[in-house]
Amino acid sequence: MDELTKGFNELERENKLLHCFRDIARILVSSDSVDEILLATVKYLAQYFNAERATIFLIDELKRELWSKVAIGMESEEIRVKIGQGIAGQVAMTGEMIISNDVYNDSRFESGVDSKTGFTTRSMICVPIYNYDGDMIGVGQILNKTKGYFTDDDVNQLNLLLPQIAICLMNSVMHAALSRHFNSVLHVLAASIDARDPLTAGHSERVTEYSVGICEELELPEKECEVIRVAALLHDYGKIGVEDAILKKRGGLTNKEYEEIKSHAEKTRNILEQVNFEGIYRNVPEIAAAHHEKLDGSGYPKGLSRDEIPLDARIIAVADVFEAITSVRHYRSPMPYEEAFAILRKGIGKHFQEDIVEALIRYFKRGHLKDKELAD
Amino acid sequence: MDELTKGFNELERENKLLHCFRDIARILVSSDSVDEILLATVKYLAQYFNAERATIFLIDELKRELWSKVAIGMESEEIRVKIGQGIAGQVAMTGEMIISNDVYNDSRFESGVDSKTGFTTRSMICVPIYNYDGDMIGVGQILNKTKGYFTDDDVNQLNLLLPQIAICLMNSVMHAALSRHFNSVLHVLAASIDARDPLTAGHSERVTEYSVGICEELELPEKECEVIRVAALLHDYGKIGVEDAILKKRGGLTNKEYEEIKSHAEKTRNILEQVNFEGIYRNVPEIAAAHHEKLDGSGYPKGLSRDEIPLDARIIAVADVFEAITSVRHYRSPMPYEEAFAILRKGIGKHFQEDIVEALIRYFKRGHLKDKELAD
Repeated sequence: MDELTKGFNELERENKLLHCFRDIARILVSSDSVDEILLATVKYLAQYFNAERATIFLIDELKRELWSKVAIGMESEEIRVKIGQGIAGQVAMTGEMIISNDVYNDSRFESGVDSKTGFTTRSMICVPIYNYDGDMIGVGQILNKTKGYFTDDDVNQLNLLLPQIAICLMNSVMHAALSRHFNSVLHVLAASIDARDPLTAGHSERVTEYSVGICEELELPEKECEVIRVAALLHDYGKIGVEDAILKKRGGLTNKEYEEIKSHAEKTRNILEQVNFEGIYRNVPEIAAAHHEKLDGSGYPKGLSRDEIPLDARIIAVADVFEAITSVRHYRSPMPYEEAFAILRKGIGKHFQEDIVEALIRYFKRGHLKDKELAD
Repeated sequence: MDELTKGFNELERENKLLHCFRDIARILVSSDSVDEILLATVKYLAQYFNAERATIFLIDELKRELWSKVAIGMESEEIRVKIGQGIAGQVAMTGEMIISNDVYNDSRFESGVDSKTGFTTRSMICVPIYNYDGDMIGVGQILNKTKGYFTDDDVNQLNLLLPQIAICLMNSVMHAALSRHFNSVLHVLAASIDARDPLTAGHSERVTEYSVGICEELELPEKECEVIRVAALLHDYGKIGVEDAILKKRGGLTNKEYEEIKSHAEKTRNILEQVNFEGIYRNVPEIAAAHHEKLDGSGYPKGLSRDEIPLDARIIAVADVFEAITSVRHYRSPMPYEEAFAILRKGIGKHFQEDIVEALIRYFKRGHLKDKELAD
């Protein structure tokens, strides 16, 4: 073989690896879902290594476990392996790679995952994955070479490909966790307002449900629904600044007390303005604060009318009143739904916007009423 | 040129591009900081295209602007361009790429960015960047080819490289925003508890500052500091479930009222357990709820002693008492720092752990006291 041919072959081999790099890079940015990325990447890796399957395990430091997702039929299921247990667990413990071309005669192998997935492992390479700081963040496996044996060359290629995949996955995992944390804090915030008075427990959650229901009926873009969801959850947060004695008062309110109650809308704005809401969320304080404005300008805190009121606030206003009149309150029993619909319709043009009222009624008839009054 | 040589050259060209792919992929996962990634990538791109500079602009839909970071001397500064303005702005508006090999004779060019950065643009290619859904998410620029002119081939290569970079950057930007949202919601939560009583305003923030200060003095790992930060911010959140009348009472408390006040620790746990804290944050409810436990077992709510109390809670306990006695309260004036140190030291072994008390005192003497009492 002449020099040029040798160079050509080498280049072609490197080229194949680099193509793989590019393809995987594209998979990594193709979705927000850790599961989707994980499954697409391992499918690609298996193909690249002429193997039947690949798995990327990430380390769960707290539980001292490795975890991954595998496709079983049409479903993706989580699998977990203790660090130290089986071949992958040993690689995670020792940091040493393992090539095993006959696993059922290998004492390090444990068949637990096979029993769970219904797959029969024959041969395997398994390597530790490090991030660029040198911390181990996972373990990569390629299973059942279709022809011949796994070689050191396979291991070398795998070592080049895995860090980026694993770091990207870890980032996605952390992002998903942060997103769950953020949302559950919002729910706790909403619940803690309602919790100051047992009679209003769940109010903010139900107003949120109805508001999002209206958005869906009106076919608003997903981003707008998301903004309304957050604003609705927090619309009453200003009540934290209203005294218990007034908030829970059973009898009629004096004028001064009513003014104090009304101040919760402005207080909602003041508190939420301290949250650095950005991007699509930037108007959340504005929207949340305007849920007592009325179409004819007779609402509060600013007395805005029609288009001056943010659309999202007009939606929350309808959901808020509907929730209030159909729930138990200090001063009266809950109102039957049909009666509540009539009240909303009576407020069209003065208090409420027509298409929003009708959207709520459609949403409600479609869902809730099926199981409740309409079933009677 | 024979076939093999031709194939070789083509392969080598592709190889160069693929290497670039891999190198950029590595840069993209090398840091959490959008700025760092952005600056490292454009530096690499400039080199790859034999050009003096590269810029990747991301679209800020809300403001109808493009933004990027550029290195000016040792600093990185944000630059913004209106969509429609200058060459990059036009590419963003029309979605058509532009090659301009003599920009100062090109009417589309605007020198605003040059004036800001002190750079002199001569030639430029500028292309729109789309994500895989076909939405435009940014604009990429390569500036001042060192030899010759920019060609269509440069544009083709750039189009292959940019989507992954831009998507990755967008993900980082969104992650950073979510993280800021999450943190500012935590601060609002802390502030809203303190705000129910003007006399305790800022208590949670100061307890957090002191707790993190202790962690740093004790050289605890960064992750532990982060957990303590969140637990300290939220340690009093259970007070949301305590009545105003008791919380703000100026005189002495009856036994029953004192029990009600004490219930805030358990209430903190109950509320925070509704937040799906995961990963490093999983013990936040436990830690926050234990800030009134004492080393000798005489604290509440559980009467835990010594190692039964989470270390993080032992730290918050010291910070909490110190903040309380050195601030104005209903029932007395703030205590001078040296007197407060003496009280903490008196509690060592019974209430507090020695090294934590000493760490607080060291932290405090290093920072606060310099400006205050010690300066007298």
